[in-house]
Amino acid sequence: MTYCCGILVREGLVMIADTRTNAGVDNISTYRKLHMFNHPGRHIMMIASAGNLSATQSVLHLLESGFENPEIKELEKLVDCKSMFDGAQLIGRAVRRIHDLEGEAYEQSNVKFEVSFLFGGQVENDAMRLFLIYAAGNFIECGRDAPYFQIGEYKYGKPVLDRAVSFDTDINDALKVALVSMDSTMRSNIGVGLPVDIALSRRDSLDLEVDERIDYTDPYFHDLRDRWSTALRQAHLGIPRPPYGKKR
Amino acid sequence: MTYCCGILVREGLVMIADTRTNAGVDNISTYRKLHMFNHPGRHIMMIASAGNLSATQSVLHLLESGFENPEIKELEKLVDCKSMFDGAQLIGRAVRRIHDLEGEAYEQSNVKFEVSFLFGGQVENDAMRLFLIYAAGNFIECGRDAPYFQIGEYKYGKPVLDRAVSFDTDINDALKVALVSMDSTMRSNIGVGLPVDIALSRRDSLDLEVDERIDYTDPYFHDLRDRWSTALRQAHLGIPRPPYGKKR
Repeated sequence: MTYCCGILVREGLVMIADTRTNAGVDNISTYRKLHMFNHPGRHIMMIASAGNLSATQSVLHLLESGFENPEIKELEKLVDCKSMFDGAQLIGRAVRRIHDLEGEAYEQSNVKFEVSFLFGGQVENDAMRLFLIYAAGNFIECGRDAPYFQIGEYKYGKPVLDRAVSFDTDINDALKVALVSMDSTMRSNIGVGLPVDIALSRRDSLDLEVDERIDYTDPYFHDLRDRWSTALRQAHLGIPRPPYGKKR
Repeated sequence: MTYCCGILVREGLVMIADTRTNAGVDNISTYRKLHMFNHPGRHIMMIASAGNLSATQSVLHLLESGFENPEIKELEKLVDCKSMFDGAQLIGRAVRRIHDLEGEAYEQSNVKFEVSFLFGGQVENDAMRLFLIYAAGNFIECGRDAPYFQIGEYKYGKPVLDRAVSFDTDINDALKVALVSMDSTMRSNIGVGLPVDIALSRRDSLDLEVDERIDYTDPYFHDLRDRWSTALRQAHLGIPRPPYGKKR
């Protein structure tokens, strides 16, 4: 299982991804799912991946090493894309390429070809953007009304995002909420686990302000979990006692 | 879709269920999912149901009208059960009976036979108990370590239960948290909706203290939603700013 989230607010972009992969609960491992294609000053491109690890790794390999666009007979790499939209299209083509190569074998093994990607960042002379790319290679772009995307095990961590994040949320608060959302997910699904990779890029900076891995020993994350748990426990204490009785 | 939750704390039992049923998003309707088999002073038995409406209705019909136990050749009704455990077994048998009758037809129509039930309450001279009955008719009992069960769309509303409810939680706080959990679910899944049925029975009272339907116009529920949203939005403000930068 996996949980990744991207939040695009007025001030910039936050990305977060866990690192747990598992084939059953008795075979877990740690793989990075937040991938960087950065050239500070020119472009910041981040990809968070969910789904079959073999398929996502193959897609990332194509994006990094380049693969031929049959229409123009040229090798295309992600870092050469002139806009985030072009990048999202390229990721979509890479997904379809891997599906063309391996989809039938997946089917024969009764394994569903499941991949999804968050693609966020900014290319010089273009706006900061965040995309969600599906297993068919099609994609959607994040808007202002619900300024975040999630992939993987998204349900546990969604209520806090829905309530605490808007386009005008301070970017450091967005990072806090992303961590709370990740914590809520980890607490309920053992297929999502530490360490967690986080990144933050301010709009038009064309650079990363935060790029860290949070591990079991991280004191801030421990404190955040404690404070959030306490806040949740106390929140309902401020709500008056239910007035209900027997009406029927 | 459906969301039902039962919480069994030291002081007693809280049950909550939404009322929305849907066949696609373009065909929604309202059906009661919290069913009462009560005889105050003798027994309180409540069943919350999730899954195919036709199957859950058929099961409830068997429980109400009675059906023959082939081993003892006698008609058995839920209200005649001498303990909650006997009741859970009877519900399990009713589920299997309906599956025997209709399971093959479900399969032929490519519809999965999906039902689950929460069964909570107390029978005279027996302890208050809460059971979760699966589609195979097997069941588990709620324990003190995680004193609640959920059926249906359970993920959105689980984080708050995990953090705010323990066996020693005040029963009115448990009802508040159940309402918050329902609200979180309704906010994220339009297949779960108002009105919501709630019930509360104190341990050893053999009666209901609360038995109400909460509708769109309910001022307390509106206030609870507002206060909870505000609390969630403010909770992260009390958490210090993330100290992260670029480590790699």
